[in-house]
Amino acid sequence: MNAILKQIHERKSVRHFRSDKVKIQDLKEIVRAGMAAPTARNLQAWEFLILDDEKLLSHLSDQLPYAKMLAEVNAAIVVLGDSSVKSPSGHTYWLQDTCAATQNILLASEALGLGAVWTALYPYDERMQPVIKACQLPEHLIPLNIIPIGVPTGDDKPNDKYKPEKIHINQWKAQ
Amino acid sequence: MNAILKQIHERKSVRHFRSDKVKIQDLKEIVRAGMAAPTARNLQAWEFLILDDEKLLSHLSDQLPYAKMLAEVNAAIVVLGDSSVKSPSGHTYWLQDTCAATQNILLASEALGLGAVWTALYPYDERMQPVIKACQLPEHLIPLNIIPIGVPTGDDKPNDKYKPEKIHINQWKAQ
Repeated sequence: MNAILKQIHERKSVRHFRSDKVKIQDLKEIVRAGMAAPTARNLQAWEFLILDDEKLLSHLSDQLPYAKMLAEVNAAIVVLGDSSVKSPSGHTYWLQDTCAATQNILLASEALGLGAVWTALYPYDERMQPVIKACQLPEHLIPLNIIPIGVPTGDDKPNDKYKPEKIHINQWKAQ
Repeated sequence: MNAILKQIHERKSVRHFRSDKVKIQDLKEIVRAGMAAPTARNLQAWEFLILDDEKLLSHLSDQLPYAKMLAEVNAAIVVLGDSSVKSPSGHTYWLQDTCAATQNILLASEALGLGAVWTALYPYDERMQPVIKACQLPEHLIPLNIIPIGVPTGDDKPNDKYKPEKIHINQWKAQ
């Protein structure tokens, strides 16, 4: 199989990490890959936060029950949507832009031998608020997710979600 | 540079196509890559439509001013969000799920030597309606985009969107 397709299928949600540190240069490379995703009308309605302060990560682990593994890593990325960026018609596309960028971030992490997992903040107010406060986010920035990144233990495996019945040809038919 | 990162950066929005046909097997492989993206709570709130009927593509090209290139290709993929899939808390995540899947679809197309471009249908009613009608979509399925796929002429180049000032460390600061 083509190497890129193989990588796409081997990507997994990694929730178990070794204690090794992730290099800031790798984190920047991963964010750079995020910015290579397409954005609606090329509006690039995103910003990115790299977290490498272990006190901050530990604090967020305490505050976020679904992202407890932040205490196990020494790096994370928060993908931020910029809700102030609008098309002339008044539409915002920050959710589309940040989700496509996140997928690149997950693939780039895997490509560098690292593990990562998308833990949702948006649309949950009780999850977004601790990040907004701790990272001093202005009102127009919406934290889509927090992505712990580290060296995987190897315990997490890809989840095969392939369902041929979800492919339809030319017209939709329930299968 | 790592081959996967290189591919991520080389992906481009392709809007100019040769007349060569795309194999149905490649289209299914591309959709399969889409399904390998993570989905919120593993709810997989998506369905996929492969279009290879040239009359249908030509009809949609007439109806969709932003997707005129559908007349130049003999294949396209429509990524559908299933709005009936909800978490116990009543949240829907189809937009997140379909956007992450779309990014995999774009990368997989590039990996197979094909060209593709995300042309938005959602959130525009006047763009979604022609697809809903022509493809007989039930009410709970929302067409996020239509992605023409074909052999690229080579005229389209990647758009470098890297902006170091959009990377923040630990706390947000306007730069």
